Amino acid sequence: MKTQKLAIIGLGNVGSSVLATAVQTELFAEIVLIDPRNQVAFGEGLDQMHAGGLSSRKNITIYVGSYKDVADADIVIIAATHVYVNEEIPADRQALLTENLPIVHEIMGNISQHTQEAMLIFVTNPADTIIHVAASYNYPKNLLLSTGTMLDSSRLRQLLGQRYHVDPKSVSGYMMGEHGYAAFPALSHLTIGGIAYHELPTYFPELALLTAEEVKEEVVQAAYDVFDAKSGVTNVAVAQSAIDIARCVLLDEKSIYPVSTPMTDDEYGFTEKCAYSVPCILGKNGVEKKLLVTLNDWEKEKLAESVASIQKSIELTL
Amino acid sequence: MKTQKLAIIGLGNVGSSVLATAVQTELFAEIVLIDPRNQVAFGEGLDQMHAGGLSSRKNITIYVGSYKDVADADIVIIAATHVYVNEEIPADRQALLTENLPIVHEIMGNISQHTQEAMLIFVTNPADTIIHVAASYNYPKNLLLSTGTMLDSSRLRQLLGQRYHVDPKSVSGYMMGEHGYAAFPALSHLTIGGIAYHELPTYFPELALLTAEEVKEEVVQAAYDVFDAKSGVTNVAVAQSAIDIARCVLLDEKSIYPVSTPMTDDEYGFTEKCAYSVPCILGKNGVEKKLLVTLNDWEKEKLAESVASIQKSIELTL
Amino acid sequence: MKTQKLAIIGLGNVGSSVLATAVQTELFAEIVLIDPRNQVAFGEGLDQMHAGGLSSRKNITIYVGSYKDVADADIVIIAATHVYVNEEIPADRQALLTENLPIVHEIMGNISQHTQEAMLIFVTNPADTIIHVAASYNYPKNLLLSTGTMLDSSRLRQLLGQRYHVDPKSVSGYMMGEHGYAAFPALSHLTIGGIAYHELPTYFPELALLTAEEVKEEVVQAAYDVFDAKSGVTNVAVAQSAIDIARCVLLDEKSIYPVSTPMTDDEYGFTEKCAYSVPCILGKNGVEKKLLVTLNDWEKEKLAESVASIQKSIELTL
Amino acid sequence: MKTQKLAIIGLGNVGSSVLATAVQTELFAEIVLIDPRNQVAFGEGLDQMHAGGLSSRKNITIYVGSYKDVADADIVIIAATHVYVNEEIPADRQALLTENLPIVHEIMGNISQHTQEAMLIFVTNPADTIIHVAASYNYPKNLLLSTGTMLDSSRLRQLLGQRYHVDPKSVSGYMMGEHGYAAFPALSHLTIGGIAYHELPTYFPELALLTAEEVKEEVVQAAYDVFDAKSGVTNVAVAQSAIDIARCVLLDEKSIYPVSTPMTDDEYGFTEKCAYSVPCILGKNGVEKKLLVTLNDWEKEKLAESVASIQKSIELTL
Repeated sequence: MKTQKLAIIGLGNVGSSVLATAVQTELFAEIVLIDPRNQVAFGEGLDQMHAGGLSSRKNITIYVGSYKDVADADIVIIAATHVYVNEEIPADRQALLTENLPIVHEIMGNISQHTQEAMLIFVTNPADTIIHVAASYNYPKNLLLSTGTMLDSSRLRQLLGQRYHVDPKSVSGYMMGEHGYAAFPALSHLTIGGIAYHELPTYFPELALLTAEEVKEEVVQAAYDVFDAKSGVTNVAVAQSAIDIARCVLLDEKSIYPVSTPMTDDEYGFTEKCAYSVPCILGKNGVEKKLLVTLNDWEKEKLAESVASIQKSIELTL
Repeated sequence: MKTQKLAIIGLGNVGSSVLATAVQTELFAEIVLIDPRNQVAFGEGLDQMHAGGLSSRKNITIYVGSYKDVADADIVIIAATHVYVNEEIPADRQALLTENLPIVHEIMGNISQHTQEAMLIFVTNPADTIIHVAASYNYPKNLLLSTGTMLDSSRLRQLLGQRYHVDPKSVSGYMMGEHGYAAFPALSHLTIGGIAYHELPTYFPELALLTAEEVKEEVVQAAYDVFDAKSGVTNVAVAQSAIDIARCVLLDEKSIYPVSTPMTDDEYGFTEKCAYSVPCILGKNGVEKKLLVTLNDWEKEKLAESVASIQKSIELTL
Repeated sequence: MKTQKLAIIGLGNVGSSVLATAVQTELFAEIVLIDPRNQVAFGEGLDQMHAGGLSSRKNITIYVGSYKDVADADIVIIAATHVYVNEEIPADRQALLTENLPIVHEIMGNISQHTQEAMLIFVTNPADTIIHVAASYNYPKNLLLSTGTMLDSSRLRQLLGQRYHVDPKSVSGYMMGEHGYAAFPALSHLTIGGIAYHELPTYFPELALLTAEEVKEEVVQAAYDVFDAKSGVTNVAVAQSAIDIARCVLLDEKSIYPVSTPMTDDEYGFTEKCAYSVPCILGKNGVEKKLLVTLNDWEKEKLAESVASIQKSIELTL
Repeated sequence: MKTQKLAIIGLGNVGSSVLATAVQTELFAEIVLIDPRNQVAFGEGLDQMHAGGLSSRKNITIYVGSYKDVADADIVIIAATHVYVNEEIPADRQALLTENLPIVHEIMGNISQHTQEAMLIFVTNPADTIIHVAASYNYPKNLLLSTGTMLDSSRLRQLLGQRYHVDPKSVSGYMMGEHGYAAFPALSHLTIGGIAYHELPTYFPELALLTAEEVKEEVVQAAYDVFDAKSGVTNVAVAQSAIDIARCVLLDEKSIYPVSTPMTDDEYGFTEKCAYSVPCILGKNGVEKKLLVTLNDWEKEKLAESVASIQKSIELTL
């Protein structure tokens, strides 16, 4: 019997958090860890294996492998990133490009040789540029995405949930565009308990309605609050995002998540190839449909800023 | 240490399904089963206990008890209903009132003597009339609700999810009013992936937009499709609804769920006391806030029909 | 992407409980329900689908199908059994043979035409005879088992757990032989917290040590306590057993569970082909190894009684 | 309603892993993080909160607090440890005592002022000495334990599981004594699938039977394999151990786990007060019963070595 398999590429803070989240599910019989720093991958795997003797855990096989082990993987989560030693980690995700570009080239070169069927979930930054580069390889476009603004969207729902004292899961809404400074909330499509964003003051008169700009700033800042407090690391929420996408694909759930995918056409009137986050229907065939939701003027402007920012980054890859 | 305790009153098809769902969670250390048919409760409890030796299960204590055992319960789920022997179960939930009215009086009389602190989750039909009656007892109003249209709402999301080939969890929306024929979809507050209901044809041009009336009929009919196929039983989805409410309360999640609660004021301009489902914020204090969402004309009309239907039923209880 | 699929054959009390247990896992993207009573299967599936709109549930596809739908199933759980209408359900599992024999022939005939790769997990009684019959079909022997005494073993651990006030999961031990009156506890291999059964009085001096015969009787009786209280039904614990086996296979866990498998050789010196439960290592290749544990004299005698009872039943199938 | 609350003291590698494991359960409505490095605690909490907007997560409240917040905690997990900056972390757990002793004094002084009812689960090393010191405070002894050799036991089962190609959960057995170099496997109480350790060659003739000494060395070494590969960190398996104990207590499961508890009497003939790991029955009253299992000569000798090692460490605390 073919069992379900996850490959994690890059076992730094994010990759090890992906692993820790994956072992709490029933989705994978086998998890292969791939990292040039074999010892690091070995340590993370072994520590998790040592929990395998506890009654709360499933007996999952975890091992250190190489790219040939992605051949029969169902899901590949790419969490590889440059390791900054005795240097400050750049706060701007775009600044990671110089170092991460060759890493992604190496990864896509290797993966595309061994499989054309696994769902590739990138966490590596800068998220959108990375997807654009990955999409230049001979690999099915629908099986290629970045967690993109799925994480920013979770932060958005969390912030509004806290503000209105409701479960973030009762907030329906998302951030779109760049996973970075230019990400923006599509408030024209956001509801809390079915109530449109701009109508919230009727129900919560004690709370001033934040402007779209204020919401955007708070969400973008939230990432840096973690980044600063954790010395350049933001890992657990993005790891959960990646595993949630994996579950959605493996169970063919058809959930709508904002993720970054190759934008090859003239979506939203942008004619050059790009990659950014829009709400997508995800299932066993990966990105099955993009929902190019109508935007209001402010949102259009912000999307243009996102695309401009990503295009600038893409130019650096040429 | 005070551990968390569930009491289930009534161990028929619904009650045993509530039990089966509860044992799959980590919410309860102790579950007490209360049913005048002691043997039935005993059998259900014992069968579940027999699974307790499997490594997938937690060692939860399940036992047959009496009303005094609700004294330290955190959650009480009331699934008691008249047992129709050699008679057809009435399809109209309101028709259950004659038989279930004395049952609810007995239950509330007993519960209110032993506790004033447990969250009471009713599943017994007719849902709204039952809540109205229960609310006449000396018991905190905020700790009293029926699953009401939470189940109808799940059916609504499921039906639209299937129609649009998306995860029902990506549909944000609910049914309101009576848990019965008069339940109606509040489509003016429904979105799929953030897209307002009436804008769906832009994104799914191949699918005709169902009218509110059509959606209402399909959802109401869905209950009868199960009822007919299962010979008068609809149990598993409502059991999951009850457990989800319990989780929300125990974890103080502040989720917004449509549930039936006592309407004592002049909500929506109806001046007589009643009970029906509106979206509510649920947390450790039970029903913490009702969201009296704005309704369009059709929805107002349907709510009036719901209230009229429930009031007619309430009159029969006097 | 090939997603994981469960087929349930027979949607009576056991089958619907298998379904209810399966939907609480993350193991299956797709569940097909097969029952000649299409309406019954439809009702159970629809009721579960109606819970699919709740945030606690995964969006799993559940549908009514036919034998051709087992072609790509990973796991098939066979819970089909004769439906006794206006007749008492026989308490002796062997008495079910006359009615269930043609059912199993029909099922195996159909399954073996459509797949040779699915793990077949039988719940149908009489468990051992059914496996013997199923093994006569052209189907890989390792992919064929009955939950057998896995359920009795859970009852054993539960009973001893309750007696000694410890978690049944801290009891290591099993019932072997026939799934029926002749099942016996292999107490020579049973430990509680690592303490051999016969040494328990040292640690629990207040409790008399039950004889093997007494333990056997209590465990066998436990089934009838449920059977009697639930009017001929014992479903939830056996359903959990079947799903636990499915998980073990899908995650390739290599757990040791007592299950009934074809005994084709001269295991334990019995030269005729038979089927009964011994502890087995289960993984992605189904029954990967049988552990023919050493038995003491009493256990050997009881195993002989099991084999004799099953052989007598097998003769009726010729 | 009183909801369930966890306090985590110390948010380093272990504490943040405890948090990551806790949020995957349904056990806690509220988690308070206590660390003198407020910023570190804030960052870990915020990163987890940012995942709270994902549909896979419960809406748990996580916040940075102080010792007064343990007043209504049900479980307190103490993962505090000295932070070595620009120094090598000592490999011998006993060497951590000098730095961790004042930390534990501070913690116990504070906790015991605010509560006498929470279950205290220590992860801080040296595990046994720490428990001995903690037990000198005015706090119920039964509510005080260290994960001790629960982690070593999981490693033991994992190692033997891998060696025999079986699920570690099918291995029943444990390490006892010191959580450190002197920990030893109680092989006289270990079974695999009910087969006594020394009888394994009958069933697995291809595998040489490791001596107790060899098993001990492999298990002790396993910790250092992780420690070395992860630059002085072993966190995820011990975090899972702590959460499993918490679950066992909150669900009153009565599981038997080897944990380190105050040994005040003359258990095993050692007359001086000490603390080390023996299998214990854990429930809502914490350590409800110690199982002082019979040891063979080698095991007695190893226990004496454990006690000697811990006593030597305890002397340093006076």
